[in-house]
Amino acid sequence: MAGMAAFSFFFTTFIFSFVSSERYEPTWESLDSRPLPSWYDENKIGIFIHWGVFSVPSFRSEWFWWDWQGNQPTQDVVEYMKENYPPDFTYADFAPMFTAEFYNPDQWADIFNASGARYIVLTSKHHEGFTNWPSKYSFNWNAMDVGPKKDLVGMLADSIRRRTNIHFGLYHSLFEWFNPLLLQDEANKYETDDFVTSKTMPELYEIVNRYKPDIVWSDGDWAGNYTYWKSREFLAWLYNDSPVKDTVVTNDRWGWGCLCQHGGFLTCTDRYNPGKLQKRKWENAMTLDIDSWGYRRTATLEDYLTMDNITQILAQTISCGGNVLINVGPTKDGLIKPIFEERLRQLGDWLKVNGDAIYGTNPWTYQNDTYTPNVWYTSKKVETETNVYAIVLEWPETDTLYLAAPTPSSATVVTLLGYSYPISWRKPSTHPNGIEIVFPIIPFSDMPCQWAWVFMMEGLVN
Amino acid sequence: MAGMAAFSFFFTTFIFSFVSSERYEPTWESLDSRPLPSWYDENKIGIFIHWGVFSVPSFRSEWFWWDWQGNQPTQDVVEYMKENYPPDFTYADFAPMFTAEFYNPDQWADIFNASGARYIVLTSKHHEGFTNWPSKYSFNWNAMDVGPKKDLVGMLADSIRRRTNIHFGLYHSLFEWFNPLLLQDEANKYETDDFVTSKTMPELYEIVNRYKPDIVWSDGDWAGNYTYWKSREFLAWLYNDSPVKDTVVTNDRWGWGCLCQHGGFLTCTDRYNPGKLQKRKWENAMTLDIDSWGYRRTATLEDYLTMDNITQILAQTISCGGNVLINVGPTKDGLIKPIFEERLRQLGDWLKVNGDAIYGTNPWTYQNDTYTPNVWYTSKKVETETNVYAIVLEWPETDTLYLAAPTPSSATVVTLLGYSYPISWRKPSTHPNGIEIVFPIIPFSDMPCQWAWVFMMEGLVN
Amino acid sequence: MAGMAAFSFFFTTFIFSFVSSERYEPTWESLDSRPLPSWYDENKIGIFIHWGVFSVPSFRSEWFWWDWQGNQPTQDVVEYMKENYPPDFTYADFAPMFTAEFYNPDQWADIFNASGARYIVLTSKHHEGFTNWPSKYSFNWNAMDVGPKKDLVGMLADSIRRRTNIHFGLYHSLFEWFNPLLLQDEANKYETDDFVTSKTMPELYEIVNRYKPDIVWSDGDWAGNYTYWKSREFLAWLYNDSPVKDTVVTNDRWGWGCLCQHGGFLTCTDRYNPGKLQKRKWENAMTLDIDSWGYRRTATLEDYLTMDNITQILAQTISCGGNVLINVGPTKDGLIKPIFEERLRQLGDWLKVNGDAIYGTNPWTYQNDTYTPNVWYTSKKVETETNVYAIVLEWPETDTLYLAAPTPSSATVVTLLGYSYPISWRKPSTHPNGIEIVFPIIPFSDMPCQWAWVFMMEGLVN
Amino acid sequence: MAGMAAFSFFFTTFIFSFVSSERYEPTWESLDSRPLPSWYDENKIGIFIHWGVFSVPSFRSEWFWWDWQGNQPTQDVVEYMKENYPPDFTYADFAPMFTAEFYNPDQWADIFNASGARYIVLTSKHHEGFTNWPSKYSFNWNAMDVGPKKDLVGMLADSIRRRTNIHFGLYHSLFEWFNPLLLQDEANKYETDDFVTSKTMPELYEIVNRYKPDIVWSDGDWAGNYTYWKSREFLAWLYNDSPVKDTVVTNDRWGWGCLCQHGGFLTCTDRYNPGKLQKRKWENAMTLDIDSWGYRRTATLEDYLTMDNITQILAQTISCGGNVLINVGPTKDGLIKPIFEERLRQLGDWLKVNGDAIYGTNPWTYQNDTYTPNVWYTSKKVETETNVYAIVLEWPETDTLYLAAPTPSSATVVTLLGYSYPISWRKPSTHPNGIEIVFPIIPFSDMPCQWAWVFMMEGLVN
Repeated sequence: MAGMAAFSFFFTTFIFSFVSSERYEPTWESLDSRPLPSWYDENKIGIFIHWGVFSVPSFRSEWFWWDWQGNQPTQDVVEYMKENYPPDFTYADFAPMFTAEFYNPDQWADIFNASGARYIVLTSKHHEGFTNWPSKYSFNWNAMDVGPKKDLVGMLADSIRRRTNIHFGLYHSLFEWFNPLLLQDEANKYETDDFVTSKTMPELYEIVNRYKPDIVWSDGDWAGNYTYWKSREFLAWLYNDSPVKDTVVTNDRWGWGCLCQHGGFLTCTDRYNPGKLQKRKWENAMTLDIDSWGYRRTATLEDYLTMDNITQILAQTISCGGNVLINVGPTKDGLIKPIFEERLRQLGDWLKVNGDAIYGTNPWTYQNDTYTPNVWYTSKKVETETNVYAIVLEWPETDTLYLAAPTPSSATVVTLLGYSYPISWRKPSTHPNGIEIVFPIIPFSDMPCQWAWVFMMEGLVN
Repeated sequence: MAGMAAFSFFFTTFIFSFVSSERYEPTWESLDSRPLPSWYDENKIGIFIHWGVFSVPSFRSEWFWWDWQGNQPTQDVVEYMKENYPPDFTYADFAPMFTAEFYNPDQWADIFNASGARYIVLTSKHHEGFTNWPSKYSFNWNAMDVGPKKDLVGMLADSIRRRTNIHFGLYHSLFEWFNPLLLQDEANKYETDDFVTSKTMPELYEIVNRYKPDIVWSDGDWAGNYTYWKSREFLAWLYNDSPVKDTVVTNDRWGWGCLCQHGGFLTCTDRYNPGKLQKRKWENAMTLDIDSWGYRRTATLEDYLTMDNITQILAQTISCGGNVLINVGPTKDGLIKPIFEERLRQLGDWLKVNGDAIYGTNPWTYQNDTYTPNVWYTSKKVETETNVYAIVLEWPETDTLYLAAPTPSSATVVTLLGYSYPISWRKPSTHPNGIEIVFPIIPFSDMPCQWAWVFMMEGLVN
Repeated sequence: MAGMAAFSFFFTTFIFSFVSSERYEPTWESLDSRPLPSWYDENKIGIFIHWGVFSVPSFRSEWFWWDWQGNQPTQDVVEYMKENYPPDFTYADFAPMFTAEFYNPDQWADIFNASGARYIVLTSKHHEGFTNWPSKYSFNWNAMDVGPKKDLVGMLADSIRRRTNIHFGLYHSLFEWFNPLLLQDEANKYETDDFVTSKTMPELYEIVNRYKPDIVWSDGDWAGNYTYWKSREFLAWLYNDSPVKDTVVTNDRWGWGCLCQHGGFLTCTDRYNPGKLQKRKWENAMTLDIDSWGYRRTATLEDYLTMDNITQILAQTISCGGNVLINVGPTKDGLIKPIFEERLRQLGDWLKVNGDAIYGTNPWTYQNDTYTPNVWYTSKKVETETNVYAIVLEWPETDTLYLAAPTPSSATVVTLLGYSYPISWRKPSTHPNGIEIVFPIIPFSDMPCQWAWVFMMEGLVN
Repeated sequence: MAGMAAFSFFFTTFIFSFVSSERYEPTWESLDSRPLPSWYDENKIGIFIHWGVFSVPSFRSEWFWWDWQGNQPTQDVVEYMKENYPPDFTYADFAPMFTAEFYNPDQWADIFNASGARYIVLTSKHHEGFTNWPSKYSFNWNAMDVGPKKDLVGMLADSIRRRTNIHFGLYHSLFEWFNPLLLQDEANKYETDDFVTSKTMPELYEIVNRYKPDIVWSDGDWAGNYTYWKSREFLAWLYNDSPVKDTVVTNDRWGWGCLCQHGGFLTCTDRYNPGKLQKRKWENAMTLDIDSWGYRRTATLEDYLTMDNITQILAQTISCGGNVLINVGPTKDGLIKPIFEERLRQLGDWLKVNGDAIYGTNPWTYQNDTYTPNVWYTSKKVETETNVYAIVLEWPETDTLYLAAPTPSSATVVTLLGYSYPISWRKPSTHPNGIEIVFPIIPFSDMPCQWAWVFMMEGLVN
């Protein structure tokens, strides 16, 4: 994971609030020219929520159905089904058990808010094809007709908007593992498009018109190319005529050939964390349960990221110009389990102290320190000055911390976020350049936080 | 219920085996001009089978869902659900309980065969929208994805064809009570047709191509008119290009304005039994459980038609030129209950003796006797002669039976079907015309049957 | 099956209404000396009802649990469970599915009443140990705690007594296949009796005190001997001090060594039908589904006894001094299926015409005719005369019926029950003794019944 | 919560390893004279596990059944059942859903071991009466017959003994809310004892003989007095003749009149934490979910004790001579959820550093400091010396900590557990007595722990 960066101006030209009077054409050239609405980059942190019928078995992962009955079944899933269900039990038989009886979206909104996240992305439909809203195009395979008997999407949109300033986004999978219409299109080498015209596209228009999401987070893009999926036509409508045309942000999963290339921000791979500055705005979608996005009952403590892991990922991602989308998996009865809540609230506690180093920042000249490992930088323009934030992931063993990248001036002032006393620094005696921060001795009761401390440096030499 | 008939030639001109080289146009004029394939009229008796998710509650009737949650809920269904299920239980939650674990279509085929029926009509999909075959257009709401995990339609088609000479037909409902696409088309005053193009029509083409039914028994026709449903286009394809174009028979339920007017044979109303000769071929679709077509657990003995009822309906219907379609409702576990089996086998016993008076017959000049009640006539051309069958529903109290309609000649011979001795007759002394049959004294052990006796009269004066 | 009988007085000395002031000792000598209350022999026909958790799988028979998990599992039951349930499903898991939601004991009472039966015997507890009443000794394994949530026994007792004159009896199994207390007693070679003292006996006292049954029909007697079961002590209490001491009737299944030997009436084996006169009062317990006592979903029409079978068994049994106990198996949802109802109502129709030959009769000198097969006799004292009833199972091919056993006198009058005209008879010309009945010619509409006709002969030579 | 203590020798006379040749009489005088096996006091920390059918609804608490259907139903439980289950659903219907499919007792053992606990107490049977072992006395209401289909008790005993040195104990409730035998004894004013002789006592003997528990933790003692329960007879057997007579420890819940008076250690009330020294050995049974002992799905993060809470309770309890029994509630599928695991492992981390201040300690002269709040003492004899441990719950704001209770000598040495450098101390200048500990400045990375720091003081003036 390298550090030094070449682009000082980054993609700032792309990101600003801008309402065009021009119309976008359904070509990538035109669509890619749309500036990303600025709120997205400024807000940095989102929460991803994977919820669906897979939350019923909540075994292995949200790919349960595929792992069970796909091309190469996974032994543990096959065994699990064999040991616990009748032989001819099907995935659809799980739907009535997706009860959501404790679903309290106000409570979710409050937890998300306490985490410091500024946007959320909820799975409106995953590869199983089950729609978490009462879709017209998924009769008896949606959350109103069977299982929850509720509009899971609408209820959360409402709570989020009523109780918080969080942006509401929706995940939607183009692809469905077992939908026979898609399988037929596939058998026809994508020369037919019945699945797209009667299912995917109607659904996408339906969720945009109904829930007005600020993010349309597309997925399941690998099955056909973007021509088959009619993605460009949808995006042109989304950008030109939809009710969210001025605010909506999209990602890059719009059909074979798009990933990491076209669309809004880039996601490239799951848990994308390149460790160096990227040319375009990107997002690191990662998950607190290291093995699954959907709730997984058998996950043990060691399967959950610690706050040390989370702050590390956060620092790396933001430093390199990414947003981070942190995933939680609610249970089939509608609960965010305490271990998730704890991580989210701990993150919120950390951001209350250190949020200045995250929200509204830009990548700096350097992403991580050129000498000392585990130090990552962000920066923020304040009038004519640029403040630089060094996110220090490990408290040093000695009482000084040498940073090679910053060049102090006589006007340089160093502050530890969350700590009220000034921090001493000096020119290093043993290195030609850089700054040596004298690490403060702080009684345990006065520590600003327990993970990843941030030093703000003002008045550096540019 | 009147008797005398005016048409001596009936619709014989319509019914003959005929393969046209002309193509039908999608107009009623053209479609109605197609001669009904002759097998249908000749075979007279079919079995109707109502099976679906409604077989799970098997309460009140196959209209359970509508009675529960339609515009005007029925009190007993509402109460039943309230007392036996959680408050937010939905109809889709019933699907996993449609287990069909004992479904043995060979056994069904044998029972149907023993009944003397010559065709069957199975509900491929009722108004609930659940397809009993693995339709591409009903993802997770079909018998392969949930519940039976079997192709119920295909399995029965196979058994019927392998074990019997019975014609295989399929019922299909255009309409679905709660399909949101249809509700939307309806809200749009049928100016949109999303439901038709993405659900109904694809399904109909799918079942015809896949199962090659000899009958397409359409229903649920009241919601939109035939233009909305695109029925004429389908029928033109069915008659011109489908794999069953030479043999297939259809009914008259193809959209508002068709019933009792257009299509193949006429069904007019459920249990249609006009009691007099009709101009066109028609069918009396009736059901052994007087209150329901789907299986109904609480039906008691008195809710089932007796053999007296059945032979009466049969005699009336055949005499007036109809076919009879006798309905049974299998259970959710795939069984035809013994009370149904008993009626069907009793009917078969009756037909083994009296089938000559039914199969391949035509209506006679008179449908029922003009003097003695409960006597119904059929006739059959044998070379130049016409044999007339008098179906006598009640054994007379005295030893003679006076019939006013037939005019005997000196060559007249009367036979009691199933009885080997000749039957005496005489010109009546107290009536100017007709025939007096001397009812035989038959020991109980020699009785040809226990319900509805048939006298064949040869050599009558035309 | 032989016929001629030696005992003209039979067991009449045993059967009379008698209230002794003496007390019975808990010895067979004393207990067997108790006269059987006369109502039992007079009433002749009972209905047996097998209902329990086995009605849930309703597969193979009420021995389902044993067939599944006993010493030698039965292949079809093992397969059935394997194919339809999760691997670790247990019998106890069936209990919540024993719903009885349609249980309407008034309706049952009316059907039983219409059948002509004069007593019923309901399984209060079968070998599975599940009590159909809220027993104190079967916590959470009884019909109030789980499944029906009703006192099935009490509700039927109440309906029967409120709506009919039928005697109410209870079946109770001493034995339980899998009760660990019994298995432990067994392992201890019956030298301990924990099962008897904490389960069987408390239960028996509980049902007698609570429901005051007129019959205690014991079963499951083969596991230990009567000393282990403390049967004699129970019977002494039942005969001396219980609330039903004057009316109660018991059978002979009270522990190893009792069957066909001790107790009240003898049952000997299931479907006991010896075909000749017995020294003591006995009962033929048989079942309409030839293969099962509990409801069996897969039973087809040919598995049910026909009315020809039933009248034959009835005639044989009553002629030889037995009572007949006809079994039906209700469903898990609480219904007596139409095929059972039909047989019971047909039996009632037959008894309405022919009941004189059954109720209150005694065996005659001969049980069946010594020459003509399928003719069985009963008799009834009317003042000083003895009327003899010949139950003729098959209508003769010719117009005369020769009976060798009766000796007519000049005063002999022969009547066909249900037929209003006198019947001719003559001394046979070709036989030295007996009577020749001239079989009447009866129009079908005047037939008294369709199965088993009865000729009453008055004024025979004794 | 007071502090100063009078008893320097405490109950040490009671606690020693001792195998008596005398036999105990079934009187409290005799039973109470038995010395408590020393392992119990030495080990200090146990884990309580509440698991049963109540883990299925896992709503409100393990008293779910009572809260639902007891004398005064609780509104939220009544509503929960009304909204989510059919009207006649019973508690017994939950049993098949107690699946325990993920129950891995090895994993449990490892977590318990990692927590530093030295004994565990598992609910063998709670007030619901469901036995977690295959009891002979609870047919079809035990974990082998229904639900888990496993011997939950035996499997955990085996894992604990195979993988750890943890002592295995069993909780057992005398009382059952709804057992009809108990209700009957109660109605008889406890003049009958059917419930005790056929259920409670056989069960207790069964679990002791079968699982040889080191603790018999009785509960449900309020319903009858100890004479009714025959507790003294059981305890005499347990102490004299049982397979665990030399090692077993019991508590004080053996019937009305015992609590906080008779038996082994005293529990007095749930969460008993008197804050001052007690005359007899006692135990603080508390639970990590502040509102429930059984798993509670809706518990949120704030319902779980934090490590600050836990170390506080631990310090108070041990200082005052108690043991602490920390409860976790596994799920119906057999899992210890991560939030519980996290607390247990955090406790284990703390004990790895600070266990010297807990295990094998005695109360000191003072329980908490007489001047500075939130400091609790324990002590340990090392040869002739007594080391004193001050458990400091809050890191001081300033750099000194004044303790009034200890009197330093010139030989006094102070150590911070888990920290390798010596700790300075001085005589206080502003107080006549006590000791002033100079709080070390420790870089965050060298902190021995994050909650409750322990200073060991050697060489104090006694």
